[in-house]
Amino acid sequence: MNVLLCGDIGAADFGAWQQALQAALPEARWLDLAAARADPAAVVAAVVANPLPGSLAGRPNLRLIQSLWAGVDRLLADATLPPGVPLARMVDPAMTAAMAETALWATLALHRGFFAYAQRQREGRWRVHAQRRADEVRVSVLGRGQLGSEAARRIAQQGYRTRAWSLREGPPLASLLAETDIVINLLPLTPATRGLIDAGFLAVLPPQASVVNLARGGHVVDADLLAALDSGRLRHAVLDVFHTEPLPAGHAFWQHPRVMLLPHAAALTDPRSAALIAAANLRAARDGLPLSNLVDRAKGY
Amino acid sequence: MNVLLCGDIGAADFGAWQQALQAALPEARWLDLAAARADPAAVVAAVVANPLPGSLAGRPNLRLIQSLWAGVDRLLADATLPPGVPLARMVDPAMTAAMAETALWATLALHRGFFAYAQRQREGRWRVHAQRRADEVRVSVLGRGQLGSEAARRIAQQGYRTRAWSLREGPPLASLLAETDIVINLLPLTPATRGLIDAGFLAVLPPQASVVNLARGGHVVDADLLAALDSGRLRHAVLDVFHTEPLPAGHAFWQHPRVMLLPHAAALTDPRSAALIAAANLRAARDGLPLSNLVDRAKGY
Repeated sequence: MNVLLCGDIGAADFGAWQQALQAALPEARWLDLAAARADPAAVVAAVVANPLPGSLAGRPNLRLIQSLWAGVDRLLADATLPPGVPLARMVDPAMTAAMAETALWATLALHRGFFAYAQRQREGRWRVHAQRRADEVRVSVLGRGQLGSEAARRIAQQGYRTRAWSLREGPPLASLLAETDIVINLLPLTPATRGLIDAGFLAVLPPQASVVNLARGGHVVDADLLAALDSGRLRHAVLDVFHTEPLPAGHAFWQHPRVMLLPHAAALTDPRSAALIAAANLRAARDGLPLSNLVDRAKGY
Repeated sequence: MNVLLCGDIGAADFGAWQQALQAALPEARWLDLAAARADPAAVVAAVVANPLPGSLAGRPNLRLIQSLWAGVDRLLADATLPPGVPLARMVDPAMTAAMAETALWATLALHRGFFAYAQRQREGRWRVHAQRRADEVRVSVLGRGQLGSEAARRIAQQGYRTRAWSLREGPPLASLLAETDIVINLLPLTPATRGLIDAGFLAVLPPQASVVNLARGGHVVDADLLAALDSGRLRHAVLDVFHTEPLPAGHAFWQHPRVMLLPHAAALTDPRSAALIAAANLRAARDGLPLSNLVDRAKGY
């Protein structure tokens, strides 16, 4: 079984991925783009992480494209992606847990004002602010997939008034936002959700609400978010993802006192567990068994 | 029923406390120190929050001293405290929940390196660090009372390898610390625990461990903690309590890059719930019923 392994994995991590995948699927021959070029027909599956556009074209015997990342919006944007081939995203309970940890940490920090305390520490000011109970804080999680559901479950478990929302389920977005203190975005990036967090979205939130974006930079209209933060109407933003990554030097998010910025680290995919999940799907493709975590290309996730 | 209300509640909060207590126990007459001075024998109970030494002496008919704070170490240090009178500390589920929130937030932040990300944001650096699973992180909670137990329960619920310890239960402290990545102090401050977190304690922790102190400043030998932080052996400290509060300007904790400092705000007592708990104990004292949350003066908590 010849498997193409390619994409934007990062030089330091590539070895870890290769090792974990080889251990999980020792019967496979792992090819890089150069090796696969010699005999395109030999490649029966591809394991990818945001590969360069064109990497997957012209491979007549491809039975599965398995992404190592949960988000496949960049992959779907490649016009040369072979149309008929099943495409699977990574759904790894360890990655889901990591995302839920970040969502819960952000919720606790925003609820209890720990970002404000950090700011006051830098200013050398000792001042206690008021404390609300968790059941007085309304948290809305956008996204009801694996990531959104697990984040909402853990947040609700701490006593927060938690609601989960998606384009298909839940109340109208505006009525939800009007009763939300902390909104956490875990939606897939699709034409329907691109630019969702704009001036209109932010205007419906009550004063002193906070926004947590753990999904994709394309969900946010940066200028609108900055305006809401600068006006003081929005209390805080926790941002893990950006239109351009790394976030360019000089971008207003970097030094904004109301922004906590993460370098797309809310949930890293762990090679140890993800390689096992990818290997199981590759075996299923080889043996003609049902595939897991398939992407609906029409929906975009 | 004449009840003395006195202590270090803070001018802004005093009204909220008085209002909540009056609503919870409308049949009582609430006296301040000046009003109580007129007729010391009339006072049958005292509701206190770190009162000035001497405030409770010379009141022959006192049946209960009810603290509004969970920690009574300052109260017990008052040599004029009437020896025979039952003394109750505040045990409020809302305060316990707030403390557990802070312990969980600190655990998540230390585990996932969110303090390091905040530091890198200030430096304008985009760099992802390695991510461990929660079940690879060993958390030890010192203290098995209401606060320690609830904190440990919530931390364990997130998948951390969690252990709880007290002077009476658990393995020897040194063997516990040798297998601890994050240690959270929620012990009462007594002669047996004062200065517990010293050079010897810190030397037993593995390299890159973190310390969270949510109990009392007196548990920590500041110079030893600073030395461990400065040497880089200790990764981070989250400190809510200090020998002198407010923490004096110029203290090395204020601007230390490895210290997150809170202004004794890990868990505020909420007048809305605590007043009801105090009122129930005052009624029990008036009616000769069993009292709740009594302090063992010999143990010191």
